[in-house]
Amino acid sequence: MPFPTDARLAHYVDLERHRIVETLVEWLRIPSISALPRHARSVRASAKFVAALLEEAGMDHVRLLRTPGAPSVYADWLHAGPDAPTVVVYGHHDVQPVDPIGLWDSPPFEPEFRDGQCFARGAIDDKGQVLYELEAARGLLQHEGRLPVNLKFLIEGEEEVGSPHFEALLERERKRLDCDLVVVSDTGMLAPDLPSTCVAMRGLVAFDVAIRTARGDLHSGLYGGAVPNAARVAAELAAALHDGDGRVTLPGFYDAVRPLSAAEAASLAAVPFDQRAWMDQAGVAALEGEAGRTTLERIGSRPTAEVVGISGGYAGDGMKTIVPATAGLKVALRLVADQDPGEVRQAFEAWVAARTPPGADVTLTPEGAVAPASTPVDHPAVGALCRVLERVWGRPPLFTREGGSGPEEAIGRVLGAPVLFLGVGLPDDRIHAPNERMVMDQFWRGLVAASELWHELGAMGREGLARPESGRGAA
Amino acid sequence: MPFPTDARLAHYVDLERHRIVETLVEWLRIPSISALPRHARSVRASAKFVAALLEEAGMDHVRLLRTPGAPSVYADWLHAGPDAPTVVVYGHHDVQPVDPIGLWDSPPFEPEFRDGQCFARGAIDDKGQVLYELEAARGLLQHEGRLPVNLKFLIEGEEEVGSPHFEALLERERKRLDCDLVVVSDTGMLAPDLPSTCVAMRGLVAFDVAIRTARGDLHSGLYGGAVPNAARVAAELAAALHDGDGRVTLPGFYDAVRPLSAAEAASLAAVPFDQRAWMDQAGVAALEGEAGRTTLERIGSRPTAEVVGISGGYAGDGMKTIVPATAGLKVALRLVADQDPGEVRQAFEAWVAARTPPGADVTLTPEGAVAPASTPVDHPAVGALCRVLERVWGRPPLFTREGGSGPEEAIGRVLGAPVLFLGVGLPDDRIHAPNERMVMDQFWRGLVAASELWHELGAMGREGLARPESGRGAA
Repeated sequence: MPFPTDARLAHYVDLERHRIVETLVEWLRIPSISALPRHARSVRASAKFVAALLEEAGMDHVRLLRTPGAPSVYADWLHAGPDAPTVVVYGHHDVQPVDPIGLWDSPPFEPEFRDGQCFARGAIDDKGQVLYELEAARGLLQHEGRLPVNLKFLIEGEEEVGSPHFEALLERERKRLDCDLVVVSDTGMLAPDLPSTCVAMRGLVAFDVAIRTARGDLHSGLYGGAVPNAARVAAELAAALHDGDGRVTLPGFYDAVRPLSAAEAASLAAVPFDQRAWMDQAGVAALEGEAGRTTLERIGSRPTAEVVGISGGYAGDGMKTIVPATAGLKVALRLVADQDPGEVRQAFEAWVAARTPPGADVTLTPEGAVAPASTPVDHPAVGALCRVLERVWGRPPLFTREGGSGPEEAIGRVLGAPVLFLGVGLPDDRIHAPNERMVMDQFWRGLVAASELWHELGAMGREGLARPESGRGAA
Repeated sequence: MPFPTDARLAHYVDLERHRIVETLVEWLRIPSISALPRHARSVRASAKFVAALLEEAGMDHVRLLRTPGAPSVYADWLHAGPDAPTVVVYGHHDVQPVDPIGLWDSPPFEPEFRDGQCFARGAIDDKGQVLYELEAARGLLQHEGRLPVNLKFLIEGEEEVGSPHFEALLERERKRLDCDLVVVSDTGMLAPDLPSTCVAMRGLVAFDVAIRTARGDLHSGLYGGAVPNAARVAAELAAALHDGDGRVTLPGFYDAVRPLSAAEAASLAAVPFDQRAWMDQAGVAALEGEAGRTTLERIGSRPTAEVVGISGGYAGDGMKTIVPATAGLKVALRLVADQDPGEVRQAFEAWVAARTPPGADVTLTPEGAVAPASTPVDHPAVGALCRVLERVWGRPPLFTREGGSGPEEAIGRVLGAPVLFLGVGLPDDRIHAPNERMVMDQFWRGLVAASELWHELGAMGREGLARPESGRGAA
């Protein structure tokens, strides 16, 4: 599809392309892995890098918002007047770990451009998506001297570890972050010729389970068969997570799950889905999951439990004849409306306690909790977003449900504002995996779309955004 | 108990103590980990070190016996005359890996002496036990100018990886290794005041199971709940190894197990066993295993399956939201008479194949196979060993069954000779684990016992060792 050359920032993209790409590369070189304490300095460097970019863009009140962990970055431009809507743009500047490093075709923190794609950890998740929003603001301020909305950036530093301090930050900074609308720039669409916007995201609760069964590893010949084996305890927990029908075995896990409304089910059914192509993209030879559900239901509208990691005993070359004394298990549970992360956490803790055999010492560490989120599809702002997506990508967008989880629920709830999802990621971007990439054409369209959306919202005004009571709850 | 100062080599021990300890330290500094290909050079250095010691001791025909893997070391002294028995002393010069390295109180390859113990990887398994045999020969040759038996040393280099090339070496070198008796120096006793000798060892078959379910790790939000998860496949295999009664689930696994004879059962029942003390030693808070069996039965006379290691997905700090694409599982099965390693291997392969879910690609690599071994307790050589153990440790020894596995079955079978076990290890020596140690008093007694045993055997002569037909099969 042709690039919309009549868009306000099309010319800016042409003029500034080189500088913007250089900026992207420089940022992607910072290994801001929030999961690894030894990278804390890089996460901080990434925050400062964003702050400097926001300054250069012409934003005001640029600052790092401290948390007990990594800082978020804030900036605003509040000169659009009292009738213009105030929009918070949310993204994050931290990235996933890079293991297994051996599977990367190029080093994860040395961005490479091949076939119109940028390969690097964080390219699409989420530095690229933050950068086009930021450059859209810079472009408008440069070329029009103003923004059509009052704009606030909030760029988090702990999204990839489950946003452990983000809700407290939102509460603390509620006044500073007051807004009419949140635009999240951290999602994707079905394909460049199938634009879509997310209207629901799953929640997430995750746990690290540490198991100890002896003071140290024991000789399997001298002790094997008579003492508990930590690796087996971990394996038994992991294997017990699902029943024979692929359903999660935590008692009451599905009780609060809200069935899809007719409108939601229709939207889900309308999404074109080539199962064979999806499997090829994923690189899998079979599908599985909850019995009686389609793949799209399983990944979008159903809660799941996933073994994220298991470890115990000897994993090197060859063999070592031991009974492992320690083992670890990492589990991530995806939640849908109206599951409550706190209740699921309690259910998981009780489930583990009930399955811990005698002689095993289990330490359970929660690794973040995020509630599921959804956006009412008949909100006027969703209409504005749909118009922009159609203009920039050439087709009216579909509504999708994302299986991933972010702090979107908290941000919408605490700030009392609807949450829109403008995201240019593609299904094959390999986020969280080796060879993460961003398709550069999507990036440039994202930049244009961000600025077009602010113009749409500015034209509607706060008045136009006030949603008629009658529409509430329709989705 | 007092050291037997009337023993022939008691004086030698006093005179040479310093040099012998220095030799031990120098050898233990060589990280001869046979499981790790990157340590192949050290394993070779260890072989050469032993060869040089054997030369210095006055042994003849010192040489490395090549294999497709690490070399064994051979030497002999064959001047005791045709009526003297020929004895092969077996031990090994390779050691276990050192993970988890963080749990060592001192570096594994920098031997430390604390409280009369030597702490190092390989201290007791098996460098210390080889060294006292070797120094016993050196002592006798130095002080008496001769040995009472024709002696052959065979010091293996791949024992800790399941002796993959050892049986072929035995077959090839059968003539060179021709003997009346094998003395294995790689086992332990119940306690310094409870001397014992092993009369049965379990066999071992081990496997590495590599699982792949996707081209690369997948985002758990985008794919979780709909695609196979390699870590879960590994966990399900590991969890399925045992049933609710702690019995191994491989079909037919117990079919060939020979029940204990009345004599064996009586011997096992006579072994004093303080279960509480044993648990404290192991550092475990509970016992488990095959239902209806005592702990001593479980570790000595029953076959077992142990998860040696499991790994898959993310094991670092914090959390990573992935569906792991690859996972690994290491399983070691201990066998007892008359289980056949080949049959068990086939059963395991069939068991894994039957449990591999669609979409999982499983690669199964056997990691060595050793058949179970046993020694007839009424053999005259066992009587000689018992007299020596009583003289050196002050009490008649008990007979034990070792849960561990070595190449003893192959060596006895291929060379057609009974196998004696002279070993000074103690239950708390932490072999294969961090802080492996050897109690030095046991080492010095081992040195004296080795020389005393050769004198006993020499005095009996080949004639005396020829076991009366009537006694056969009594044990």
